[in-house]
Amino acid sequence: MRKAHPLHLRLLWLLRDEGPLSRAELADRLQIPRPRLLAELERLVALGYVAEAGLAKSRGGRRSTLVELDPRLRFAAVDMGASSIDVEVVNGRLEPVAAYAEQADIRSGPKATLHRVNELLHKARADGAYERLDAIGVGVPGPVSFRDGVPVSPPIMPGWDRFPVRELLTREHGCPAVVDNDVNIMAIGERHGGVAHSVDDFLFVKIGTGIGCGIFLGGEVYRGSDGCAGDIGHIQAEPHGPVCSCGNVGCLEALFSGAALAKDATAAARSGTSPALAERLAARGRVTALDVAEGAGEGDVTCIQLIREGGRRLGGVLAGLVSFANPSMIVIGGGLAQLGHILLAEIRSVVYRRSLPLATGNLPVVLSELGPRAGVAGAAVLASDVAFLEAS
Amino acid sequence: MRKAHPLHLRLLWLLRDEGPLSRAELADRLQIPRPRLLAELERLVALGYVAEAGLAKSRGGRRSTLVELDPRLRFAAVDMGASSIDVEVVNGRLEPVAAYAEQADIRSGPKATLHRVNELLHKARADGAYERLDAIGVGVPGPVSFRDGVPVSPPIMPGWDRFPVRELLTREHGCPAVVDNDVNIMAIGERHGGVAHSVDDFLFVKIGTGIGCGIFLGGEVYRGSDGCAGDIGHIQAEPHGPVCSCGNVGCLEALFSGAALAKDATAAARSGTSPALAERLAARGRVTALDVAEGAGEGDVTCIQLIREGGRRLGGVLAGLVSFANPSMIVIGGGLAQLGHILLAEIRSVVYRRSLPLATGNLPVVLSELGPRAGVAGAAVLASDVAFLEAS
Repeated sequence: MRKAHPLHLRLLWLLRDEGPLSRAELADRLQIPRPRLLAELERLVALGYVAEAGLAKSRGGRRSTLVELDPRLRFAAVDMGASSIDVEVVNGRLEPVAAYAEQADIRSGPKATLHRVNELLHKARADGAYERLDAIGVGVPGPVSFRDGVPVSPPIMPGWDRFPVRELLTREHGCPAVVDNDVNIMAIGERHGGVAHSVDDFLFVKIGTGIGCGIFLGGEVYRGSDGCAGDIGHIQAEPHGPVCSCGNVGCLEALFSGAALAKDATAAARSGTSPALAERLAARGRVTALDVAEGAGEGDVTCIQLIREGGRRLGGVLAGLVSFANPSMIVIGGGLAQLGHILLAEIRSVVYRRSLPLATGNLPVVLSELGPRAGVAGAAVLASDVAFLEAS
Repeated sequence: MRKAHPLHLRLLWLLRDEGPLSRAELADRLQIPRPRLLAELERLVALGYVAEAGLAKSRGGRRSTLVELDPRLRFAAVDMGASSIDVEVVNGRLEPVAAYAEQADIRSGPKATLHRVNELLHKARADGAYERLDAIGVGVPGPVSFRDGVPVSPPIMPGWDRFPVRELLTREHGCPAVVDNDVNIMAIGERHGGVAHSVDDFLFVKIGTGIGCGIFLGGEVYRGSDGCAGDIGHIQAEPHGPVCSCGNVGCLEALFSGAALAKDATAAARSGTSPALAERLAARGRVTALDVAEGAGEGDVTCIQLIREGGRRLGGVLAGLVSFANPSMIVIGGGLAQLGHILLAEIRSVVYRRSLPLATGNLPVVLSELGPRAGVAGAAVLASDVAFLEAS
């Protein structure tokens, strides 16, 4: 929490992240004189952000009264994936009040998809999760102009280019909305309540159907000059590799991702080199990346080999990014994080071997702690930030 | 210039970068009330940072008096290369008052090298360039702990590891000193007075004996969590490439740098594929990267081919960094920038083809404007920053 941020934001963040506090604690933590704090609190109570929260536990002497975020604050967190929608309604402390998940194909376009999101949010209200929303945070699986609140040329989201997602949600629900890339919101979630808690410079690598990277530098999400930083799935990992869906040769994503791994697993099942995969292919007619994870767990040599090979590819790209950005942590998340410790070990081995000792001397490479909840958790953080900013 | 920076810093920066200004202009530009400005100016005059500068040109009405940086302010800028020392003494506006350049082998160790630096600075004083120095900025050709002011495990600087460069200079000259990586100071120079003027997010790629990258993000140098960000010379550019001096395989630097190009040029001269290089080898007994530049200028096909091949390698690595960091400009500097437009064209071709259209739609790839002066220019900026910070 930087001193440069406005007082009301620092105050609301404290109450969000630490819960009810006494006025004395607040003045102390924010390093401001008590009269200034009291004036600010009065303002925030009038605006409906802050409320009295009863008496603190006695520490001898007069018991002080606590303040907390207004218990009626509600934020909606929406994580749209390629084939799923996750929605949570949370209170001011970002604790879930209601949660919904369903299958949905992002390719059905913005109108149909946002209609489902709206229906889920209206259902949450009917279920008593909120009376009115204070802000909505949304993640989408593609590049976003954060400033404009619109997707920009998203490769797997036909029909969404420049669609006014933020504007539509704001109009429907009468509250501010904020739209970001799905990987950025996962990184935000992981920094707020996960393994990267309070880490200022880290990379969050999402390995799912594709591969992307959320970047935290100096305690802030770094989005790049056009908002598309972190597009690491199309970094060339092998000059003579396969042709990628983007048209280029040897992209990381074409060599290692959910889609690439499913393809390699299917080939291994058919060729008979992997009993574990052949069994699953026979039973279900298809194999996916998760079958490779299961097979590796059973000790299937080919499955282990596939994961190691993938880890080596990803590790090669990450080694370059470590040399470039010198982060202090790498977090691996997304569906394929389930490949677990075999994957981590391989990534570590390549990164530690290839990057400067100074950069890797103290560089944890770890799995996401929030797992599939990272996205909604980050969307909730973003929503609260945009709501709090309005309290100026 | 961010509003979050302290007033005295913003004021001194304005006078440094724009020269004498009237009090009215200053109050206006800094958006502060006149009494606050006058108090601050009085304080800075007493400290010896600011002085009266006579009357402004008449614009009708009463002529206002100007203030400027104290004309006695002097900063020393030192750029140590692998085989050279450049020293400039500049005034508060960073205009050179004296300049010295000489050959020096950084491998002769810190004591001998810094002894030469001190001798040059004492000579500058004897020459009348200054009475006392207000700060010294230094660049060294290796990784630096910016916070501690010491080189850290610098590969081409034997004996310099953790040597207290900053402390020694501070003690010798009785003023604050600041030590940074040579590529960072070049990037700082280029942003202050070169092609990247006022660009907030850009990469400065130095191609010399080795390859390194200075990174500006959000208007600040980004140094990474251990201060070694930008070490791109050892990113793998070719999985089956040659072994690098660092022990790894296929590093960019092993494929394209001053040293690599000299080796390829020598081979081309010996094999007879390049008349231009063969002629130079016969005349001088050796060929360097600059011979390749000259040969290309004369239309020698092999020389052009060598530059294009190098540009392709570098472009491949930069394409990955553009996907990751989404900068708004790439500046090519260092000795090999003399390879010029053939090199730029090849880099552009690879970067524009391989990175997201959103990231490359408006991404100039340009040559350094300051050329060999970029380093001292940036060291002077750093020195003034550290001196101004002390005025708090």
